[in-house]
Amino acid sequence: MTALGRPAGGPETAPASQQGMRRQNLAAVLGAVAAHGPLSRADVAGHTGLTRPAVSSLVDELIGRAALAETETAPSGRVGRPGRALALDDRGPAGLGLEIGVTHLAACVVDLRGEPRVWRRVERANAGRPAARVLEEAAALGADAESEAAALGLRVEGRVLAVPGVVPNDPGGLVAHAPNLGWRAVRPADHWPDPATVPEPENEANLGALAEQRHLGHPAETFVHVSAEAGIGAALVIDGRLFRGARGFAGELGHLPVHPEGAPCPCGARGCLEQYAGEAAVLREAGLAGAHDPVAVLAERAGAGDAATLRALDRAGRALGLALVPAVDLIDPDGLVLGGAYAELADWLLPPVRAELAARVTVRPWTPEAVRPSALGRRGPVLGAAWSTVQRIIADPARLPFRRAV
Amino acid sequence: MTALGRPAGGPETAPASQQGMRRQNLAAVLGAVAAHGPLSRADVAGHTGLTRPAVSSLVDELIGRAALAETETAPSGRVGRPGRALALDDRGPAGLGLEIGVTHLAACVVDLRGEPRVWRRVERANAGRPAARVLEEAAALGADAESEAAALGLRVEGRVLAVPGVVPNDPGGLVAHAPNLGWRAVRPADHWPDPATVPEPENEANLGALAEQRHLGHPAETFVHVSAEAGIGAALVIDGRLFRGARGFAGELGHLPVHPEGAPCPCGARGCLEQYAGEAAVLREAGLAGAHDPVAVLAERAGAGDAATLRALDRAGRALGLALVPAVDLIDPDGLVLGGAYAELADWLLPPVRAELAARVTVRPWTPEAVRPSALGRRGPVLGAAWSTVQRIIADPARLPFRRAV
Repeated sequence: MTALGRPAGGPETAPASQQGMRRQNLAAVLGAVAAHGPLSRADVAGHTGLTRPAVSSLVDELIGRAALAETETAPSGRVGRPGRALALDDRGPAGLGLEIGVTHLAACVVDLRGEPRVWRRVERANAGRPAARVLEEAAALGADAESEAAALGLRVEGRVLAVPGVVPNDPGGLVAHAPNLGWRAVRPADHWPDPATVPEPENEANLGALAEQRHLGHPAETFVHVSAEAGIGAALVIDGRLFRGARGFAGELGHLPVHPEGAPCPCGARGCLEQYAGEAAVLREAGLAGAHDPVAVLAERAGAGDAATLRALDRAGRALGLALVPAVDLIDPDGLVLGGAYAELADWLLPPVRAELAARVTVRPWTPEAVRPSALGRRGPVLGAAWSTVQRIIADPARLPFRRAV
Repeated sequence: MTALGRPAGGPETAPASQQGMRRQNLAAVLGAVAAHGPLSRADVAGHTGLTRPAVSSLVDELIGRAALAETETAPSGRVGRPGRALALDDRGPAGLGLEIGVTHLAACVVDLRGEPRVWRRVERANAGRPAARVLEEAAALGADAESEAAALGLRVEGRVLAVPGVVPNDPGGLVAHAPNLGWRAVRPADHWPDPATVPEPENEANLGALAEQRHLGHPAETFVHVSAEAGIGAALVIDGRLFRGARGFAGELGHLPVHPEGAPCPCGARGCLEQYAGEAAVLREAGLAGAHDPVAVLAERAGAGDAATLRALDRAGRALGLALVPAVDLIDPDGLVLGGAYAELADWLLPPVRAELAARVTVRPWTPEAVRPSALGRRGPVLGAAWSTVQRIIADPARLPFRRAV
């Protein structure tokens, strides 16, 4: 499986040749340092069960591929002569996360430790613009972020692009439908200026969920992550793994019918959640339009007690709560996470969301506290995109080029 | 994992002792015959990778435990001197499935091959009766079925009880809530007359889904199985495995809000699916009440073109379709299966179900054919209960007592 949870061909499925075994052992050593580092070579042998000579050879290769760095600092808690500690290289390979939103583009470079080192975010009205133009601008933003990362000694080795649309399991590399952008069957590779830097597209809600999971560090949790920007998406993490569905379409939340005979939706149905809790609907209900950063404006007005804004957010929260009843009833998650813009509006959305769930989830036990705001907010999807590339590198460091003599 | 998908302690988690290895090998041999039998001993060696002498010793033990029988019949497709073929013993260990429904009790004994050998079904108005009384009657029906099975040479070695309620993962053996029976926190073991025959309770929709999956033989499918009797349940099978949720409550469908401001439901909420597509609601709408077998009466009247019945079924189908939109949008299954009473009413329910899904599942591709009736209908849950016990025996035949000298 790749970091994004899709079946992968390639070296993982090859027979256990000597080369294949070395590849696995490189990953085991890097994984041990990622999970427990900094570590001495002896510690690595202890964590992996490999012999000291094998560890030394593997560590040398990982230093040569710039995945590991060895320092003279003593591991913490030891006294006396300083040892040599192995850590993930913060001047080595890096991951680029890109995001195309309805009203913005974003880029983030994280180093192997997962630390964000470069951030870029620009406001852009992307809805309805030609996909080729939007993708070219995203590529330019990414190239810019890569240059800044290079100045920090980082080299981007993987790229993932968060999009507010459905990305099928098969074929890969395709955005099948992004209604709020006006995209159908767009393949980023077809429009990307540099074939060497084409990113893998993924649904932004899925990436937001991966980011939340990494941030929380609860590996086996089952949760539903709601991700709101202009549209509303969701992602399912089941026992700690992203569940993409039979075809990659799991987690569609924005078009759940909350009032079946309600307002018509551009998707063709009626009464979809987005008609009550989507950004445009909330702004309309609050009497706002055309604000530069509508989420910030909503939070500011709600904080100041503006009645129309409070009414609009209460209505959105009730609709969101209604749409989350099926998520709780069908999936029985440990929790629900409100991410994206919803995290920044949680003070006003959580009470009506919790009230609807309390009134309607009655057959089985349920506590209001099981709904919580995301700690990452609107940065979740682009962070998840960058982190997923780094996870992939750590799972198979043999893909990295040699960059240092060893 | 047990056959019901819960984590299990016991021998599976023991270190790979010699005894543990023999236990695994017994299961491997029995599993090979279950999947591919009848087989010669040489065929078993070929399927399992075990040596001929090891296979012979294991086969002897499985014959001693009455799991395998050896016949003089030549395996099909061979000519000449008859060989000795190994097959699952149809006079050996068996599984008992029991079911407590709102208006009936049922029992079924299946042999190791999964063939139903004994059926019992009695009509009983179980709603609101003391749980102790209902469980005593279920125990009597089960004992009766076991006696008849004994006359066929079968010995029941496992028992599962299907109930229309929520059965938590932890603690085991508890029915937390069965609203249509009026049960809360009922533990069948507390009321079962014979401690040696206490069955494990399980949600009837989950068992219906397991039965459907076994019947279809599509091991890796992801589907949602809807099970209707007096109430409406559902079960999720993800990549071929029953998904019970974080606490065992996944698949609640009957109380999804389909018309949020609609009819009040005894559960405390409003506009739940059961208020439109539950048996009582359909009978009320059709102007029927107190029929002996209401599902058969509905089918008969609908077949004869009775306008009120057709209207009631159309209304139920539209509500069911609405409730299935979240199942498709959130889970992205390969298909949806209408089981239980819905299977017998599929001629009238499928068109409105498909119409609602077509109108409301618009962002991702969806075909009406992905909704299909169950082939097992109302027998699904009790068959699933019996089959799950047999699956458990095949997964660990060392639990069987010795019954024959070898």
